[in-house]
Amino acid sequence: MTLKTKIIENFGTPCPVIDMDVVERNIARVQALCDDAGVANRPHIKTHKSPRLAKMQIAAGAKGITCQKLGEAEVMANAGITDILIATNLLGAARSGRLAALQRRLPLKVCADNPVTLGAYAAAAQVAGRPLDVVIECDTGQERAGVETPNEALELAKIIKDNPSLRFAGLLFYPPLEGWPATQVFWNSVSAGLSDLALEAEIVSTGGTPNFVNIGKLEGATEHRAGTCIFNDRMMMDAGVAALSDCAFSVYTSVVSRAGAERGILDAGSKTLTSDQGGLDGYGFILEHPNARIHKFAEEHGFLDLRGCNEKPSVGDIVRVIPNHVCVAVNMVDQLVAVRGDEIIEVLPVAARGMLV
Amino acid sequence: MTLKTKIIENFGTPCPVIDMDVVERNIARVQALCDDAGVANRPHIKTHKSPRLAKMQIAAGAKGITCQKLGEAEVMANAGITDILIATNLLGAARSGRLAALQRRLPLKVCADNPVTLGAYAAAAQVAGRPLDVVIECDTGQERAGVETPNEALELAKIIKDNPSLRFAGLLFYPPLEGWPATQVFWNSVSAGLSDLALEAEIVSTGGTPNFVNIGKLEGATEHRAGTCIFNDRMMMDAGVAALSDCAFSVYTSVVSRAGAERGILDAGSKTLTSDQGGLDGYGFILEHPNARIHKFAEEHGFLDLRGCNEKPSVGDIVRVIPNHVCVAVNMVDQLVAVRGDEIIEVLPVAARGMLV
Repeated sequence: MTLKTKIIENFGTPCPVIDMDVVERNIARVQALCDDAGVANRPHIKTHKSPRLAKMQIAAGAKGITCQKLGEAEVMANAGITDILIATNLLGAARSGRLAALQRRLPLKVCADNPVTLGAYAAAAQVAGRPLDVVIECDTGQERAGVETPNEALELAKIIKDNPSLRFAGLLFYPPLEGWPATQVFWNSVSAGLSDLALEAEIVSTGGTPNFVNIGKLEGATEHRAGTCIFNDRMMMDAGVAALSDCAFSVYTSVVSRAGAERGILDAGSKTLTSDQGGLDGYGFILEHPNARIHKFAEEHGFLDLRGCNEKPSVGDIVRVIPNHVCVAVNMVDQLVAVRGDEIIEVLPVAARGMLV
Repeated sequence: MTLKTKIIENFGTPCPVIDMDVVERNIARVQALCDDAGVANRPHIKTHKSPRLAKMQIAAGAKGITCQKLGEAEVMANAGITDILIATNLLGAARSGRLAALQRRLPLKVCADNPVTLGAYAAAAQVAGRPLDVVIECDTGQERAGVETPNEALELAKIIKDNPSLRFAGLLFYPPLEGWPATQVFWNSVSAGLSDLALEAEIVSTGGTPNFVNIGKLEGATEHRAGTCIFNDRMMMDAGVAALSDCAFSVYTSVVSRAGAERGILDAGSKTLTSDQGGLDGYGFILEHPNARIHKFAEEHGFLDLRGCNEKPSVGDIVRVIPNHVCVAVNMVDQLVAVRGDEIIEVLPVAARGMLV
């Protein structure tokens, strides 16, 4: 029996599948890249949201993990992971009491780019009875979160220093691909100011899978956080940082309609693969029909344009789709079916899926 | 204490909230529209995925419900709902045995547009020991699923008639807004052919919330299936079928960063509100700042362009976002917080969330 038949008979379609050989290879490669650059590896679990996979990353040499939400950190802490950095301003988690509750159990590393967040963190740390380690988010070109100047970073460092519920832990960068020289200038300036404050940055963190091309280029960097590299996706192939053979995740989906000669419908739409195009044309790469184009999604329909295909798929065919953006696709599903070769070996819960707070 | 404070202290942010007064008003209005048009109401539960809300729709007069996935039908059946139409070709559910298992428990209405799907249905019905009611999906302009001609519909009707495991139940249309005259021509032609086959269509179904402007215009229609109208969203406002006061669903989200003078960050991104723009500009309407523009999403960041705002939000402010497309936003979350006025009254599980199969 083929793997496709096993998948549809055991799980139906659409079905999200990961190839564990590829996962293991990706984990090892990323660890080697960090080791070679002399920075610690702190993988971002936003991509897989699985304690099992996080532990595989730690077993391979990762220092700890990065989360984006407090709820993700709760799931990872419940699984026994202790070195956790949460890389966003956590106002909702702080004001709801959940940050204090988790900080009481284990010392977290949290992130802030403004005094309001710092105030909420101090209040949570006081409830927890244990000071919070805080890294300051700094922006060197993304225009997302993060203070824009070294002076603002130092002002926040002073606030942290003066508050006994907070402890200064360092800086968090998410440099654009071309922004590493600017990040060096930013860090050098902050570094000098920190000496004047008698503060030391234990953590100087960079991030992003595409940024592995830059790893090692920031003098003073201590660790790197990347998520997508465990699975990879069409965006990473487009960026030139992954080959098709590096893509571990695909959705097995059935062709369920061929109502027109040049078109068809998959049973996976925006509620499975998401509308996140990541700047690419179409919505995913079909392994069996590289010239088929998924040109539109309804919620449960993937619209196929088959004009480019010599051999067109038939109703009942099962095809594998590599999504444009794997992180958001994994977040749609409650479990991943893990395979090795033609065997189904395990079902992994996406335990930290849908953690809003 | 304000409702916003109650929400963040009890649940954190982002938090999906429904206003039950608006929900009840929307349910009643849609039922009245169907009653006035003389067609049965078969609401599509893809929007709310909540057995509790489905039962409110039935209590208000709905004949039954529509699902898009077998997994959704399982959840609704487990809650005691018995009249269920599933409006897609269900190959994955048929081949995995789940369709047979549910059909054994209660007679389902399923949908097909091709002989392969009919074959899978017949096999499932045989395992279930009870024939499946089948409606034939017909396309009058969407170019999604659905046979393109009355002749193809009649050929499928013949296959159904000749298979003792299947029973012909009627036709399913999803007419484009301007496609109702073409749908009438299609139906008239099929209707004549059905008489020759000695078959009768118990169900002639139309669909879509925007199509309430057309309801009553298809002679022979027996029922209408619409989903979005229970909550409404920015797309429905844009289409002119809902006012702001008809929007029952919003996401309470915190402003977590204001790193630039003209920009800010919300703690809700594509993993909360989705990248589904529905053809509109930006990603959602902010009730407190109608001139703020959510111009981009990262996974957990909403990027605010505040250049149009006289009063700009501050870090720590809680704002409410009405999503462009509510159906996909609800599918991101495990529960909805139901409020009435300034009171939190209930937490509703989105029990059929994430049903892939």
